[in-house]
Amino acid sequence: MDKFTQTEQVAGNGLLHRRMFLGAAAAAIGASAATGAMVRQAEAAPLPVEPWMQVPGSPFNGYGQPSKYEQKVARTWASAPGTGGTGSARTPHHLLTGMITPSGLHYERSHSGIPDIDPDAHRLVIHGLVKRPLMFTLDDLGRYPLESRIVFLECAGNSGALFAKDPAAANVQAIHGLLSCQEWTGIRLSTLLQEAGVEAQAKWVLAEGADAAGMSRSFPVEKAMDDAMIALYQNGERVRPSNGYPIRLLLPGFEGNMNVKWLRRIKLTEGPTMTKDETSKYTILLPNGKALQFVFPLEGKSVITHPSPGLTLRGPGFYEISGLAWSGYGKVTKVEVSADGGKSYGEAALSEPVLSKALTRFRMAWRWDGGPAVLQSRTTDETGYVQPSRAQLVALRGDRGGFHNNMIQSWGVSGNGEVKNVYA
Amino acid sequence: MDKFTQTEQVAGNGLLHRRMFLGAAAAAIGASAATGAMVRQAEAAPLPVEPWMQVPGSPFNGYGQPSKYEQKVARTWASAPGTGGTGSARTPHHLLTGMITPSGLHYERSHSGIPDIDPDAHRLVIHGLVKRPLMFTLDDLGRYPLESRIVFLECAGNSGALFAKDPAAANVQAIHGLLSCQEWTGIRLSTLLQEAGVEAQAKWVLAEGADAAGMSRSFPVEKAMDDAMIALYQNGERVRPSNGYPIRLLLPGFEGNMNVKWLRRIKLTEGPTMTKDETSKYTILLPNGKALQFVFPLEGKSVITHPSPGLTLRGPGFYEISGLAWSGYGKVTKVEVSADGGKSYGEAALSEPVLSKALTRFRMAWRWDGGPAVLQSRTTDETGYVQPSRAQLVALRGDRGGFHNNMIQSWGVSGNGEVKNVYA
Repeated sequence: MDKFTQTEQVAGNGLLHRRMFLGAAAAAIGASAATGAMVRQAEAAPLPVEPWMQVPGSPFNGYGQPSKYEQKVARTWASAPGTGGTGSARTPHHLLTGMITPSGLHYERSHSGIPDIDPDAHRLVIHGLVKRPLMFTLDDLGRYPLESRIVFLECAGNSGALFAKDPAAANVQAIHGLLSCQEWTGIRLSTLLQEAGVEAQAKWVLAEGADAAGMSRSFPVEKAMDDAMIALYQNGERVRPSNGYPIRLLLPGFEGNMNVKWLRRIKLTEGPTMTKDETSKYTILLPNGKALQFVFPLEGKSVITHPSPGLTLRGPGFYEISGLAWSGYGKVTKVEVSADGGKSYGEAALSEPVLSKALTRFRMAWRWDGGPAVLQSRTTDETGYVQPSRAQLVALRGDRGGFHNNMIQSWGVSGNGEVKNVYA
Repeated sequence: MDKFTQTEQVAGNGLLHRRMFLGAAAAAIGASAATGAMVRQAEAAPLPVEPWMQVPGSPFNGYGQPSKYEQKVARTWASAPGTGGTGSARTPHHLLTGMITPSGLHYERSHSGIPDIDPDAHRLVIHGLVKRPLMFTLDDLGRYPLESRIVFLECAGNSGALFAKDPAAANVQAIHGLLSCQEWTGIRLSTLLQEAGVEAQAKWVLAEGADAAGMSRSFPVEKAMDDAMIALYQNGERVRPSNGYPIRLLLPGFEGNMNVKWLRRIKLTEGPTMTKDETSKYTILLPNGKALQFVFPLEGKSVITHPSPGLTLRGPGFYEISGLAWSGYGKVTKVEVSADGGKSYGEAALSEPVLSKALTRFRMAWRWDGGPAVLQSRTTDETGYVQPSRAQLVALRGDRGGFHNNMIQSWGVSGNGEVKNVYA
């Protein structure tokens, strides 16, 4: 009997109290006792002088890269037949941790590849129902006050695979990989609109990208005057080409593709423009055959990233259950974890800082007894909204739609430690 | 007269109230009015269909990189004669913004290059005054609970150039580039020490790296039981080779090189080990010829990154003054900015989240009248400590030491808009 059996169990099938992850308490509990069998007693002999200690190491360079041993930590992608860049590339969340996504692994959804934009030639125009149409170079934009904010982006089609009749043999990257979180820095759109002078009849805004698809979306002027940002930097450096270099629109909490990349045009309009990208796509099909259009914020959601498919458990004992939670409506206030398919839930620890419209890392201690288990997480956001089960969302929407799928993910753990996507 | 002249001036030579950067107020003030002259009225004709909109863009890839147009955004470095990797590489803060440093641009200080460590062969040993010496593989460490934290790292020798008798013709990267901030994830060292069982007489800890220099530092066991971390991830992905792959010690707030990279050994001892790295280096020479040893936390400090040398002002008008503030003792509570060489100060806006032992981005609005100016920033941390002026620090320490230089940086702005390192 290890120390964990004496630790307060808060929900069925081995879930332990979140104080396991609350600062110094983790040490006080002797968190590692359960893994003792896996740790070698150090030999009396000293550590060898390894080969890499016997030669000078490699020199400095201007821009660093990950270790050659980490090449598996990469985005996977699929593109439409006959194209190289019409599709999406997914973040490998099963191999990452924390709340910040490294820029090289930020997810990408492109409708006609990454345009090769010359930043000196690129322009941003604000026109339509404004008193003074304006055109900006990047240098012009460099004079405006900046703000920084850690924000998640998620494709509206993320997790759509969970609507399939049978659970796909797929991992967290394949199902939920169209999701990332970074620190974005840019100019408040409202600052630029203030200068252009918005006419009273302007109620909507069109944003257009400079890619070959001319990807365009409409959004209400209220969002433009609230927290919309003309983003110039991600994680401290200029926006990456795959994320909209040199300018992307950031609409915190809204569907990913509304955060228009390679932004070149902002037009103030009376109503929505009804572009191809908001009529033929990004609508929510209902069971009665009608579709919801212009459902902008992404609903409260969470997913366990460890353990998850591909990360096999190596025998009974202590495991950390860890994952990501977010809401397009504000802050995550609670994440609950179940190890028995939703029969009972315990509350997970949230890693600080917990920020509005950002990913939040949650962690929960679990003592696996080696038997079957079904792991789930369920988030609650500051509006009181609770992430729905699969059955609840299918009842509401049917199972033909692909967008705004925020149902609870179930990972089945079998006796041999294998983890699979299951419906429960 | 532009709108800014009607905006409340809070300190001499054009510094404006920080409400300029407090949310929607920025727009309400009409922040951009002063830059109006620089922004073109959009022509009646629509934007051209640029060449990059007429061809499909480039396809997806596994691991993304910055734009080819951003190759100037790189670390610069210097290494000792006859070596490629004994020296340091510096973060280009004049070209970055926000609080998070991208991993490819994190600063690096190495004493014998970057070792090529095979992660499967690498071991971490905990021994010395412990009940159970332990040896861990990376897989072993993968079983322990993790925590994530956004933390700055700064070389103790950063900004040492400001002790020079005359101000060097150098930019923020050259003077202050040994400073970065990321989200680090790992295991609390206290969790592992709990398992090893620390003997009562153990008061110090030795940490040793697996580089050819065997870089080693001693620190008090109190830090080990407080917030020390065995870091495995930075900004979500595995620690980069230049930052200690596969394991680095993280001692939040302490001198950079105490955060031992390529960590292979933790030894509990009665006293400090007096390694070459803490006797011949990283001590603070005083005017009387004696030296302070074991001064661990880095004191409260700040630096303006925009404007700074290399970023020439293009005529009078509105500018954002922006920079970084931090303290190894906790949170930054206040950053004051001066445009008249310290005669008067106004309070800057701090970008949320403001975290303990992390970089904090500050911003201040400035209306430059085209005349000479001396820009300074001064931080106060939660202990009440106030960053000293150059004269104050020289009086305390003399000017021969190179470590723990946290004096106020002065940037001189001349009438032609050029920015230079000056003493004031």
